[in-house]
Amino acid sequence: MPSYTPPTKDMQFVLHEVLKVSEHPVPGYDELEPDFTAAVLDEAGKIAAGVLAPLNPVGDVQGCKLENGIVRTPEGFKAAFDQVRNGGWTALDCDPEYGGQGLPYVLSTAVGEMFSASNMAFNMYQGLTHGAYNAIHAHGSDAQKTMYLPKMVSCEWGGTMNLTEPHCGTDLGLIRTKAVPNGDDSYKITGQKIWISAGEHDMCDNIIHLVLAKLPDAPEGVKGISLFIVPKFMVNEDGSLGERNSLSCGGLEEKMGIHGNATCVMNYDGATGFLVGEPHKGMRAMFTMMNEARLGVGLQGYAQGAVAYENALAFARDRLQGRDVTGVKAPEKPADPIIVHPDVRRNLMDQKSFVEGARAFTFWGASLIDASHRGGDEEAEQLISLLTPVIKGFLTDKGFETTVLAQQTLGGSGFTREWGLEQFVRDARITMIYEGTNGIQSLDLVGRKLAQNGGKAIMAFFDLTKSYIKDNAGEDAEFDKDFLDPLKAASKDLQAAGMYFMAQGMKNPNNALSGSYDFMHLFGHVCLGLMWARMAKAAKASLDAGASDRDFYETKIATGRYYMARQLPLTATHLARITAGGDTVMALDAANF
Amino acid sequence: MPSYTPPTKDMQFVLHEVLKVSEHPVPGYDELEPDFTAAVLDEAGKIAAGVLAPLNPVGDVQGCKLENGIVRTPEGFKAAFDQVRNGGWTALDCDPEYGGQGLPYVLSTAVGEMFSASNMAFNMYQGLTHGAYNAIHAHGSDAQKTMYLPKMVSCEWGGTMNLTEPHCGTDLGLIRTKAVPNGDDSYKITGQKIWISAGEHDMCDNIIHLVLAKLPDAPEGVKGISLFIVPKFMVNEDGSLGERNSLSCGGLEEKMGIHGNATCVMNYDGATGFLVGEPHKGMRAMFTMMNEARLGVGLQGYAQGAVAYENALAFARDRLQGRDVTGVKAPEKPADPIIVHPDVRRNLMDQKSFVEGARAFTFWGASLIDASHRGGDEEAEQLISLLTPVIKGFLTDKGFETTVLAQQTLGGSGFTREWGLEQFVRDARITMIYEGTNGIQSLDLVGRKLAQNGGKAIMAFFDLTKSYIKDNAGEDAEFDKDFLDPLKAASKDLQAAGMYFMAQGMKNPNNALSGSYDFMHLFGHVCLGLMWARMAKAAKASLDAGASDRDFYETKIATGRYYMARQLPLTATHLARITAGGDTVMALDAANF
Repeated sequence: MPSYTPPTKDMQFVLHEVLKVSEHPVPGYDELEPDFTAAVLDEAGKIAAGVLAPLNPVGDVQGCKLENGIVRTPEGFKAAFDQVRNGGWTALDCDPEYGGQGLPYVLSTAVGEMFSASNMAFNMYQGLTHGAYNAIHAHGSDAQKTMYLPKMVSCEWGGTMNLTEPHCGTDLGLIRTKAVPNGDDSYKITGQKIWISAGEHDMCDNIIHLVLAKLPDAPEGVKGISLFIVPKFMVNEDGSLGERNSLSCGGLEEKMGIHGNATCVMNYDGATGFLVGEPHKGMRAMFTMMNEARLGVGLQGYAQGAVAYENALAFARDRLQGRDVTGVKAPEKPADPIIVHPDVRRNLMDQKSFVEGARAFTFWGASLIDASHRGGDEEAEQLISLLTPVIKGFLTDKGFETTVLAQQTLGGSGFTREWGLEQFVRDARITMIYEGTNGIQSLDLVGRKLAQNGGKAIMAFFDLTKSYIKDNAGEDAEFDKDFLDPLKAASKDLQAAGMYFMAQGMKNPNNALSGSYDFMHLFGHVCLGLMWARMAKAAKASLDAGASDRDFYETKIATGRYYMARQLPLTATHLARITAGGDTVMALDAANF
Repeated sequence: MPSYTPPTKDMQFVLHEVLKVSEHPVPGYDELEPDFTAAVLDEAGKIAAGVLAPLNPVGDVQGCKLENGIVRTPEGFKAAFDQVRNGGWTALDCDPEYGGQGLPYVLSTAVGEMFSASNMAFNMYQGLTHGAYNAIHAHGSDAQKTMYLPKMVSCEWGGTMNLTEPHCGTDLGLIRTKAVPNGDDSYKITGQKIWISAGEHDMCDNIIHLVLAKLPDAPEGVKGISLFIVPKFMVNEDGSLGERNSLSCGGLEEKMGIHGNATCVMNYDGATGFLVGEPHKGMRAMFTMMNEARLGVGLQGYAQGAVAYENALAFARDRLQGRDVTGVKAPEKPADPIIVHPDVRRNLMDQKSFVEGARAFTFWGASLIDASHRGGDEEAEQLISLLTPVIKGFLTDKGFETTVLAQQTLGGSGFTREWGLEQFVRDARITMIYEGTNGIQSLDLVGRKLAQNGGKAIMAFFDLTKSYIKDNAGEDAEFDKDFLDPLKAASKDLQAAGMYFMAQGMKNPNNALSGSYDFMHLFGHVCLGLMWARMAKAAKASLDAGASDRDFYETKIATGRYYMARQLPLTATHLARITAGGDTVMALDAANF
């Protein structure tokens, strides 16, 4: 069985030495002193390693079962869910007005990485509830908030998001689910929704479904979509549970991974629902929380990479095959551990340098969300809005790739169930698809975010990178050569791509859109390059200050050097593809493929 | 359920317009007239599409079951196996002296792609038998050949390869299985072997195991390994079956994919075996057939990509979401088919341009094996020996990647079992691992093949590419620009990498070995670039000659242009990584990862 070791030390490094969170003027960040965050992360780590990780293969093998309309979660899930909920973990960053602890999102992101790495399918039950909580919190009426939020904060009640229908997912303008006014404040909801994660299960007393549907007078397309609360059990004025609503789980999806999470077909047969926010403004409500939800999926992607890497590393240190070509390393053993071989290292360094870079990038993103939500910082809001599709698309593509690399480290053992690596691969795969496929992320990035407010956000990002390079150059020739020069080159490629899109965007949109996916990756590499420069700088500062754990900081710098030398050159290929334009992409008639 | 459409037309194009097989002086190639190969491929295609493809999901869901020592294959497998065997498909390229049809390997490779694409797990039963047939054919005594081969050619008896043991796979010098002489011509074989594909099953009357073991006087390491025939049932002089041998299947591996194929733990408890070839020369016997076996795995990799692409394409033509940004394409429908969107096309073109390039590359490789085995062409032998790790490593990495891309085309549907794409991903994954992991392939390429005979083979490849460019330049400016220029640039990158290795190889082997994986991919792109140039040239010739099916040829050229413009630029990144050297790869102490 695979193991899980909470990366508390690395998280502390990112929070306090790179982001220096407690020095930020964001409301609530003054609480985030190193001792406090260490205590929180240690406790979360114990649950992740001791409770959730052992249940991960159980959930995979047993899966969920639909019996007489009831979905049974795998053995041990309910007890673990109770433990997580009773420990207050589901309330971490929720509003104290509804029972939350009001802690910054950046801290709950760190906890989220641990929970997601140790058991992604399990953690989704809480994650979906949190998403629904966010939507109601942002757009619900006071009465709705009072009625639903406290129980959702504690996860006594679950929450779901119902968007997709059999004939439409990405193009939500096509949805057919209907909402007909009942004459009071309620609506009759009728339709079928598919791929509803945690749509039905046995771990909560009630499930609060958020459902996109169309009112009778709705305009065509996405401008005619409204959002409804549709509880599994009606809730009485006093908060007690009333009648069962007319909705049911019509089936469970058989899928490649995340077997421990119930992916439901949900049938609404004239179910009673309540409008959230204004009529026809449901998409807006959905979009409000998209930055956070998509960052959460990017996190899932690299978190699977992180746990996969940990297990690949353990294997590489243990497995004896062949001899170091430069001289025997373990003469007392029949062979050397495979970590001596350059190609095994290349593989491990790819994993390590991605995972640590992704962690820093995600925490930085979470801190931008805090700055926006808590601090009302509009520039932060625009920046995270720009970066969100990169975090989601790039980190899940690379996170999945990392699980595949880790699986490869184990050779044949990686393909067997026993070692658990193949589950990480199968679970990570969904992150590239849900919450908007990565193709959609790239379209959002190039088609919407780049041009928003006259390109203000991307210009701000360029400025930020340029200033960083300028402010940090000239102090240390080695740092300049190993980190700033590659970052400058990669950033130039990103700017060149941006210029190409600007020049082509209006003339021939296909030229821009054909390069959107490469742009998302180019952008991702620049972001990770920036994070690695910042991390190396922070590590150097600690070394200069005489930090005792020199191995940790030296390793950090060496890992960053690897990323800059081996991964950043990819930006040139992405740029070459982008500037190759759309002609070869669009050349074929659809019939001739 | 996914569909399978045999790519007969494309195969015919490669065989006759690109490779022009029937004009080759290789013995037996005169038979390969277009009408003949078309007839063979049509019949094979019917079995692949009509019999094997429908069993592919059945095999995946049911898997194999071990009951009282007997392995039950999935429903329908035995009947299909009988049909394949009775149709003579297992005997296609086997020696007529033992009941084979004696057809060239290039033709059985084309048939193999169909069988493997439609049902990889199923086709492995025959594939393993064929591998064992090859080993006995090359190294067995006349008596052994007469006793075992006819029944293996017809697949009445199966065959297996027993290399791996629990503590060693790659490093076979560590094996512990013992062979003790019985005093007659037989040996007592004792040991445990794992991951034995088709090690035990119910589709054959007997199974002929080829087992690597050590004689009592064996030298240490790989130089002390001998190869033995260990039949499941002893074979009497008259060819009838005798007693059950002392060997058994001790368990089935639970694994990520190829569930329809039994992956067995095999226990040899003093089983009776017979030496194949000379004592201590077992590794040589294994290596003889490695080119063919590894080409077969490369084929499996791209074949899964091919069937996945076909199904992704069908989905992209059918699924309606969003509108073409340059103008509505299907006004009569609620949305346009997703194939109108540039990023969906980018994804499909990546798949298509890889699959067709890989097919040409593999068929070319198979024709080199024919030239070597049938024609005694030593240069062909050296060239295919050099290209084998590229075919195996590059085509399986990219083949797997292609299944992932295809799965992505389907969005959420790609993650569900129902659509079948996720099975292609899970099945394709093993091809990167078995028959030598792709890391090992890259080590074989850079550590052995490059330097062999003073680098004669790689120089020959460079000459071949240069001559091709020289011979074809100057006739058509567009062809020069779109195909020859990128090929020249990529080929230069490959040469620069080769020079770097030469300069570093002796000085610091870690510098060379740290770049081995990138070199394998760089090489693969150059090979596919060469194939695309050759295909485009052939397509142009047919167009110039007034071929009626202009769409096919124009599509071929456009697809090639895509590959050259969008994939070949990767060679620059691979070169940058290679010349970055081994310092960042090897920097960390194993304890500090």
